[in-house]
Amino acid sequence: KCSVGEKQGILERLDAGEIVIGDGGFVFALEKRGYVKAGPWTPEAAAEHPEAVRQLHREFLRAGSTVMQTFTFYASDDKLENRGHTQRFTGRQINEAACDLAREVANEGDALVAGGVSQTPAYLSCKSEDEVKATFKKQIDVFVQKKVDFLIAEYFEHVEEAEWAVQVLKTTGMPVAATLCIGPEGDLNGVSPGDCAVKLVKAGAQIVGVNCHFDPVTCVKTVKLMKEGVEKAGLKAHFMSQPLAYHTPDCNCQGFIDLPEFPFSLEPRILTRWDMQKYAREAYNAGIRYIGGCCGFEPYHIRALAEELKHGSWGSGLEMHTKPWVRARARRDYWENLKPASGRPFCPSMATPDGWGVTKGHADLMQQKEATSEEQLKALFDKASKGH
Amino acid sequence: KCSVGEKQGILERLDAGEIVIGDGGFVFALEKRGYVKAGPWTPEAAAEHPEAVRQLHREFLRAGSTVMQTFTFYASDDKLENRGHTQRFTGRQINEAACDLAREVANEGDALVAGGVSQTPAYLSCKSEDEVKATFKKQIDVFVQKKVDFLIAEYFEHVEEAEWAVQVLKTTGMPVAATLCIGPEGDLNGVSPGDCAVKLVKAGAQIVGVNCHFDPVTCVKTVKLMKEGVEKAGLKAHFMSQPLAYHTPDCNCQGFIDLPEFPFSLEPRILTRWDMQKYAREAYNAGIRYIGGCCGFEPYHIRALAEELKHGSWGSGLEMHTKPWVRARARRDYWENLKPASGRPFCPSMATPDGWGVTKGHADLMQQKEATSEEQLKALFDKASKGH
Amino acid sequence: KCSVGEKQGILERLDAGEIVIGDGGFVFALEKRGYVKAGPWTPEAAAEHPEAVRQLHREFLRAGSTVMQTFTFYASDDKLENRGHTQRFTGRQINEAACDLAREVANEGDALVAGGVSQTPAYLSCKSEDEVKATFKKQIDVFVQKKVDFLIAEYFEHVEEAEWAVQVLKTTGMPVAATLCIGPEGDLNGVSPGDCAVKLVKAGAQIVGVNCHFDPVTCVKTVKLMKEGVEKAGLKAHFMSQPLAYHTPDCNCQGFIDLPEFPFSLEPRILTRWDMQKYAREAYNAGIRYIGGCCGFEPYHIRALAEELKHGSWGSGLEMHTKPWVRARARRDYWENLKPASGRPFCPSMATPDGWGVTKGHADLMQQKEATSEEQLKALFDKASKGH
Amino acid sequence: KCSVGEKQGILERLDAGEIVIGDGGFVFALEKRGYVKAGPWTPEAAAEHPEAVRQLHREFLRAGSTVMQTFTFYASDDKLENRGHTQRFTGRQINEAACDLAREVANEGDALVAGGVSQTPAYLSCKSEDEVKATFKKQIDVFVQKKVDFLIAEYFEHVEEAEWAVQVLKTTGMPVAATLCIGPEGDLNGVSPGDCAVKLVKAGAQIVGVNCHFDPVTCVKTVKLMKEGVEKAGLKAHFMSQPLAYHTPDCNCQGFIDLPEFPFSLEPRILTRWDMQKYAREAYNAGIRYIGGCCGFEPYHIRALAEELKHGSWGSGLEMHTKPWVRARARRDYWENLKPASGRPFCPSMATPDGWGVTKGHADLMQQKEATSEEQLKALFDKASKGH
Repeated sequence: KCSVGEKQGILERLDAGEIVIGDGGFVFALEKRGYVKAGPWTPEAAAEHPEAVRQLHREFLRAGSTVMQTFTFYASDDKLENRGHTQRFTGRQINEAACDLAREVANEGDALVAGGVSQTPAYLSCKSEDEVKATFKKQIDVFVQKKVDFLIAEYFEHVEEAEWAVQVLKTTGMPVAATLCIGPEGDLNGVSPGDCAVKLVKAGAQIVGVNCHFDPVTCVKTVKLMKEGVEKAGLKAHFMSQPLAYHTPDCNCQGFIDLPEFPFSLEPRILTRWDMQKYAREAYNAGIRYIGGCCGFEPYHIRALAEELKHGSWGSGLEMHTKPWVRARARRDYWENLKPASGRPFCPSMATPDGWGVTKGHADLMQQKEATSEEQLKALFDKASKGH
Repeated sequence: KCSVGEKQGILERLDAGEIVIGDGGFVFALEKRGYVKAGPWTPEAAAEHPEAVRQLHREFLRAGSTVMQTFTFYASDDKLENRGHTQRFTGRQINEAACDLAREVANEGDALVAGGVSQTPAYLSCKSEDEVKATFKKQIDVFVQKKVDFLIAEYFEHVEEAEWAVQVLKTTGMPVAATLCIGPEGDLNGVSPGDCAVKLVKAGAQIVGVNCHFDPVTCVKTVKLMKEGVEKAGLKAHFMSQPLAYHTPDCNCQGFIDLPEFPFSLEPRILTRWDMQKYAREAYNAGIRYIGGCCGFEPYHIRALAEELKHGSWGSGLEMHTKPWVRARARRDYWENLKPASGRPFCPSMATPDGWGVTKGHADLMQQKEATSEEQLKALFDKASKGH
Repeated sequence: KCSVGEKQGILERLDAGEIVIGDGGFVFALEKRGYVKAGPWTPEAAAEHPEAVRQLHREFLRAGSTVMQTFTFYASDDKLENRGHTQRFTGRQINEAACDLAREVANEGDALVAGGVSQTPAYLSCKSEDEVKATFKKQIDVFVQKKVDFLIAEYFEHVEEAEWAVQVLKTTGMPVAATLCIGPEGDLNGVSPGDCAVKLVKAGAQIVGVNCHFDPVTCVKTVKLMKEGVEKAGLKAHFMSQPLAYHTPDCNCQGFIDLPEFPFSLEPRILTRWDMQKYAREAYNAGIRYIGGCCGFEPYHIRALAEELKHGSWGSGLEMHTKPWVRARARRDYWENLKPASGRPFCPSMATPDGWGVTKGHADLMQQKEATSEEQLKALFDKASKGH
Repeated sequence: KCSVGEKQGILERLDAGEIVIGDGGFVFALEKRGYVKAGPWTPEAAAEHPEAVRQLHREFLRAGSTVMQTFTFYASDDKLENRGHTQRFTGRQINEAACDLAREVANEGDALVAGGVSQTPAYLSCKSEDEVKATFKKQIDVFVQKKVDFLIAEYFEHVEEAEWAVQVLKTTGMPVAATLCIGPEGDLNGVSPGDCAVKLVKAGAQIVGVNCHFDPVTCVKTVKLMKEGVEKAGLKAHFMSQPLAYHTPDCNCQGFIDLPEFPFSLEPRILTRWDMQKYAREAYNAGIRYIGGCCGFEPYHIRALAEELKHGSWGSGLEMHTKPWVRARARRDYWENLKPASGRPFCPSMATPDGWGVTKGHADLMQQKEATSEEQLKALFDKASKGH
């Protein structure tokens, strides 16, 4: 029924116990391919370079993704303006183009289209609930018109803003997923993962979880806490995780952005296929059934998830290698037990995050929340910056 | 003149002191995108999935590459058959499709098309010089028909085979480049880099150098030795390097294939943009003017080369980041001095290569050379494998 | 008063706010010097090689220790027998010799003598409370006769056994300190550090804390939890820490013995002087006033504690070095900021502990506790060992 | 004959094919014990604290050393004065006391006494050959009077000074050993190890080799080059090595002093017992028969050499450990295969040496050599220091 046509909807799939494989992070993948600018991270390419965005969708589809997320991250009007980007295309045009591309490729396979919204400058500069909701509404109008299959509110650091987003998304009648970019310590106001999840479910989300900011180990741990919270509250939900493809054991509560390597030297932290398979298994064992990725995920990472959860074997192509000792690597336990070297003897294993630190950060960010404008926020940042 | 139309030819560019930026390795990049199988590493995708190959060409072009290499690596008939791949397309069709794609994208900018051949099973299984040359001839016929701009003989472990290739390529009258996949210790028969380069120049190559198998530091070092050899012999040539985008300080003379991480856990070794800029500068200072990449290079790596050698600045997009401590990273010396952490405290910095070891390897591989067939070679491998 | 003669007693010192510097671990230091056997770790050297033990006491005294602990670790009769060692000296003779040596050197400076008892095979093989207490009584009789200045019950994995020990020690009327070899997760029965500390204070210990098994960071963290527990219970105590001189961020709850490097490859983990000064400062800031060390501490480590807490400066001898760039290292912040390299690029930063794992370990060890004899315990171990 | 009494002399032992186990570095070991000051590194303790020096000798003897080197490093009058140390004892008294201590302990076992001289400020400040030789003569007078068993000229960075030393030592009629503190690149004037060894043998040394400055791997490699040089020159000699107990793969030609960790943060580089056993075996296989150590060696390191070369097994005490998984470590191959973790995830594996760099260093040091006084040398250093 509805726009899904012959395809089963997201909730039908999850209710039936099916594993849903998400896609990877478009912003980072397209930055490396030359279609997104690091810093602003905005998705004009959906309108300006559709062939590049289409190709990435297609690669994820071929790798095993069964959800195509519209490339609409940071595509709210306020964010686009804020970033001072070329006005060749309006925000509406970008959102429309992103829907068309996702739909085109989704229909090449058995994938669903998910329209996505994310946190807004409006909230961070302390606009009113109505103003923030109006921002979400604009994007959602496009999703409704373009008949996406379901909606995702993702990448929220404050559960309050995510709740507002969910409330707006619910007005469409479509299934709603909501993921925060938080770790086990909770959102930036200190609300625990369990409490966050409960709030999101109560706001109407049928699927809850986390995305971005932390590595798979941390994200699975956080979603487990969400699941415990939801169950303890006597509620029901499906769970999803879309972590980074970077190892971040050394993050503070604000995630990988504070790591000194963000965003141009994260390479040594990139997960291998085997790391991904392990993530897939652990997410599954934790009861998570919507398993995808965010920044750093390339198509082969998604393929590793599908191999672990759906196909079974992998790496058998190595059996055709010329060298016998490389042929000997064509087995899972070789890769499972390997501790890969960095080739960087002058580099450490872990880093110390920048920023105001965990505790200080909480306090300061709560203060920011009370600032009343983007300008005040900037002043606050600048002041902190000088003192740093 | 010829196919280059308005464009200057490769030798005119190099003679004029222009820096030529190569492209990156298609085999590895397309494997990650889902269009090449690890193990066989053959380029059927040129014919089967032209949109994926076209897109990768375009990304390299946009990143700054001024050469589009045809995606014809391992596209000799014997290699394709050897790999037992689907016969949906003939070798000729694959080579033709690869030429068309390279030409199409090259003409979107100021890039040249280079037709490439690489080492053959024919040589490794000790076929006669005539038979090996016939193998190259087949591919070259396509390049002539499709009017590529120049030719590259690349990825040879034995200089003798490369010389044969150059001799065949020269018959076309087109400019010829030749790169070996060797390190400072020389080719697998122990011929030094300097002697290898002299042999290639004498065989007719106007551009010589190395590609694949080793990291930039090692490749620049090797090309320096080649340059010294050529100059000492009173000859003249242009020099090129197309290294891996992986740190390999721990390789033996057979390169990264023997590293235990090859090919599925090389992630922690991936070069950052800054590593690339350093490579660009060091290659330039060593007198290398054709500077590109091989396995592991993604479009953003090529962009880093162009930024270092042509544009000047980079990373300025970070100035628009929300967090002040991230904005503070919008300067070159931040990235230049950063020692990026791996996030992998349970992993070492360096690995011990597999294989028969440096010395033993030499002897054994020379023995292989004397084996008379692919079957004998396999028997030899299997024997070695058991003893290992 | 009593045996301290002119010297102030331990409680007078601590009550007056004085910092007491402990000594380092004799068992490990003397094993490296050739007087203790790794595995049994028993202190026969006190009687057999007094000059070696005296020399080590003297080095600690000169380094700044104000407590000389008798070298009576594992000197209970049951342990000595258990270890099947030469019977040249009785347990009583060993304990007596240890007291004489500690007293001799203590009187060369302003140091006190502490008689020490540690956990017993009697307890681990589930002897009765009376039998266990009788074991402690034997050693304490010597301490009373030899007029030590105070008593320490140290290296207990189960708070219950430590309470029994404290109860016996209290009968002497001497001040009593008690330290467990536990981390923040508590004792091997899962009793939290706070609860452990309360039990020990209630049993009569005036000084409580931890020793051995974990690095300074972990030990200070654990003592903080103890302090919170004691304060919450409305009790009063002094606090002490005597950690390892090895970095152990990767330990499980059973401490460094389970690390694969124990005991013969711990070298890369040894703390530097600067690490020690940092420990001294953090222990002080946590309210700990009896600050010493255990396994791995050499005299220069104790000197670093004294330099940080008493002398002020250090390292100034480097100003006399011949090379200017070494002279430039004669300042605290150079060492404070240095991240020392291991010179071991093939080794990782962290290890995975052996053993039954944290959770399993708890369960199994509780089962062991219920076993009724050393033989049963051995059978249990052997069974576990086979399954491992 | 002579002072050796019943004992065989050093040359008789080596001629008979016996392995001679040296001792470890007193300066570093006693600095850690509190009897030497880092920076000046002078041996006043021989006279001021004989019990500490005696104890260290004894520990090395018990560990397996068959040579007791007199603790006379940097005990030339000019060095002692230069260091501005207390004049409680004259240089002669210090040298005499050191001889008496070495003899006393040597006679507790089958060890020989070796009198040692090392490089002098006289040479570095460009005094004449006669003046430099007079400095050595003073120390040697004591060795003759005290009837040591043989002489060692050690720790020379310039082979010329070592030749002068050997010439003076030869006048005593005693066997002479000579070791330079150089690596495979040769002495600080660029004389190769092979040429250095030939010069020393021609000057009269019967035993040649290296000590200090580099790790065992580097030292064995250097002595191999010396042996090749001596054999190529048709000469004969015995060979010795006394390396650091620190891993230094990242040194430049000036050795560990230029490493940023020197001298207070070398801990993560300390060799394990197994590293030592490997060194012993490799030194033996290289034809070295006088195998000892220098800075960083503790008695247990010497014990490891003796265990490898003389006793056979080791580590069996672990079989008596309580935990089955620790008992399982009581075998050689466990330690042989272990890659020990540093417990320091924020630290790198390798460091960049300070100083003027390899090439620049050579030039500058040669210039220093031409300076005519200690004052000029200091001016040179200060200038360099400012530019650094």
